[in-house]
Amino acid sequence: MKILQGAALVGQSGGPTAAINATLSGVIRGAMENAGVITKLYGMRNGIEGFLEERLVDLSGLFQNAGGQIDMDQLDLLCQTPAAALGSCRRKLPDPEKDRVFFENLVRLFKKYDIRYFFYIGGNDSMDTVAKLTAYLQDADYDMCVMGVPKTIDNDLAGTDHTPGFGSAAKYIAATMSEIIRDCAVYTVPAVTIVEIMGRDAGWLTASAGLPALTGRPSPDYIYLPEVPFSMDAFIEDVRRALAVHPNVVVAVSEGVRDRDGRYAGESAQSGVTDAFGHRYLSGTGKALEMAVKEKIGCKVRSVELNISQRCGAHIQSATDICESIGVGRSAVEAAVSGKTGCMMAMDRADDEYKIRFVPREISGIANAVRSVPREMITPEGNNVTGACLAYIFPLIQGECVQKYVDGLPAHLIIE
Amino acid sequence: MKILQGAALVGQSGGPTAAINATLSGVIRGAMENAGVITKLYGMRNGIEGFLEERLVDLSGLFQNAGGQIDMDQLDLLCQTPAAALGSCRRKLPDPEKDRVFFENLVRLFKKYDIRYFFYIGGNDSMDTVAKLTAYLQDADYDMCVMGVPKTIDNDLAGTDHTPGFGSAAKYIAATMSEIIRDCAVYTVPAVTIVEIMGRDAGWLTASAGLPALTGRPSPDYIYLPEVPFSMDAFIEDVRRALAVHPNVVVAVSEGVRDRDGRYAGESAQSGVTDAFGHRYLSGTGKALEMAVKEKIGCKVRSVELNISQRCGAHIQSATDICESIGVGRSAVEAAVSGKTGCMMAMDRADDEYKIRFVPREISGIANAVRSVPREMITPEGNNVTGACLAYIFPLIQGECVQKYVDGLPAHLIIE
Repeated sequence: MKILQGAALVGQSGGPTAAINATLSGVIRGAMENAGVITKLYGMRNGIEGFLEERLVDLSGLFQNAGGQIDMDQLDLLCQTPAAALGSCRRKLPDPEKDRVFFENLVRLFKKYDIRYFFYIGGNDSMDTVAKLTAYLQDADYDMCVMGVPKTIDNDLAGTDHTPGFGSAAKYIAATMSEIIRDCAVYTVPAVTIVEIMGRDAGWLTASAGLPALTGRPSPDYIYLPEVPFSMDAFIEDVRRALAVHPNVVVAVSEGVRDRDGRYAGESAQSGVTDAFGHRYLSGTGKALEMAVKEKIGCKVRSVELNISQRCGAHIQSATDICESIGVGRSAVEAAVSGKTGCMMAMDRADDEYKIRFVPREISGIANAVRSVPREMITPEGNNVTGACLAYIFPLIQGECVQKYVDGLPAHLIIE
Repeated sequence: MKILQGAALVGQSGGPTAAINATLSGVIRGAMENAGVITKLYGMRNGIEGFLEERLVDLSGLFQNAGGQIDMDQLDLLCQTPAAALGSCRRKLPDPEKDRVFFENLVRLFKKYDIRYFFYIGGNDSMDTVAKLTAYLQDADYDMCVMGVPKTIDNDLAGTDHTPGFGSAAKYIAATMSEIIRDCAVYTVPAVTIVEIMGRDAGWLTASAGLPALTGRPSPDYIYLPEVPFSMDAFIEDVRRALAVHPNVVVAVSEGVRDRDGRYAGESAQSGVTDAFGHRYLSGTGKALEMAVKEKIGCKVRSVELNISQRCGAHIQSATDICESIGVGRSAVEAAVSGKTGCMMAMDRADDEYKIRFVPREISGIANAVRSVPREMITPEGNNVTGACLAYIFPLIQGECVQKYVDGLPAHLIIE
């Protein structure tokens, strides 16, 4: 097996997370530690879209201190910066069978910059990019290692125990949920609070709202995931039952819940707009449930949408998540310089105690598969998650990062 | 002047904050340090409402360790717990001139528990309670010290430089705003993000969204406060101008903005419901602006409502705010045992460097006055705040609290 020598290219794609820059820092560190093989590391601005326009940034230069060493202070700052420091995109690549010209152009650019290593950090859609590029390169006259590096708050990537970025989002959600429950507990007037959480098809994030329960803390009365058909009538019955026990009812609901016919709970508030990947744009699930409670029960009710803060709330990163996010980036480089290609860097969990092993896994079986919350991790009634589900998430939110604050605010690194 | 000896009573009232329990801890500490005068400290559950039902908790007992000393660990835990640990209420007291029976009943209960010190922690409506009780007691045959202890995230209490609770909310808002701006910066498609912030009549919280600008960080393009008449047309022009410069436009808007005729921007989304104090219940300001951008400009747009997290986000408390919140509670007790009554404990700021002095100030001039953002702290165009406004808020968000986490989540103290 021939080890390639040349430049490396790294990009970030898809939705921002609180940990995707930690993974970028891992790739940067890995590349600089393998400077004998990787001669230079380029970052692509706005993912593959920016690369096509040759908008590149010299990351090896940026993260090197005056003494020529890795600038760890800058890398630490990058780790605590939310969202994609290189920018992102939602560009879907064409089918390599159908549009060879697109890929020929890509290869022309790879040759121009002598790119021999390609790292793409992202979720399902980004792994699709990795798979297509891998498929094209198999018959092309250009040698390049292509590695997918997972990230998504949704935790819905196949082939890995969990995804970097999910742990920090889960920690944000569980901590915020605890605070909201305290906030709701102060009055004696019957009131219902509906907290809408991200997750179009997978309920992992919404499930995280139940984490306080695992350690005996107050937690939401009910949790509704998109994996189980949602019934507005059953929901109203659940709320009535909870109100009979205590005045401050709090429920967590996924933005993606839908009924047996596949209609979203917030359908009436739909714009019908879809994104570049054909996903429906959702809004108003919490609002729809709020309206139903107002109409059917008539008590005080409000809905809270955690919105984008749950994916960019880097000030409460999970230390476990950040360590793993760095590790997955660094080990992706290690695997690539050892000759691996066409893989996503996955994380396997040991059976007995919580311990993670980074494993390169073939991309073909991973791209475009969605890993949902298994039915057995949801209660038979479909209105909560089981202890086993919470026990699976629990280790991922452990530990707090010591963050640098400047002038009272978390410091962020901006790559100009 | 006779120094009264007897029990003390403390209550929390109005909306929750991330610092009201720190003030409670200050009162508890103050009372225990003056055990020679204050024989016992009762907490009222759900404010004055719970006291009327004699729902009391023995706080002196709860926060004393086995050795009879103040249990500082428990007090620290109370400090980092958001919302009102004793519960709250929104009960408006009757006019003492019109309903003497109500107050006679209160005094009967004070006598029953030998209450000689009354501390009420809250905002404008709570100071109204303190003022009415003070007024009644002037002609009544019962000696009791009555002290108001300020708290409100809105920072709209008169007679004090600022209010405990505001600094932590401002820190949460500024940090979250920084994160949202990073999140919005990742794509190149023109997009507008509207962040709706609490504050019915006073724009202090919304102004805090501009804090990142003071230290040269990216900050919202525009900031709209309720102190200036809001024009949807001018807003759309502002957004157009910003979009011409860069693709990711972020604006902060107060929930309470209204036009020249006093109509709320989110009027169409109004339910018409009012709370016990006759305040209109607001919703949908951000949504209304989102709809206007969609219709008039047609670009990608979303609204984010920070909602209750901005008042209960205790995991990112301001250390300055928490120190002052404890201090204001403790000094209120000090002032009371020195014979002060009918006062709110205010905070005065030194002119040259940031330094706070706690001063008891007569309640009569404070209750029911609202301190808004002065016009000169808002830009002439009315679409941003001045550097002087930010410089006023800046010291209040400084410093981070070392918080106790258990099992990956911030620990909270629940008074059962």
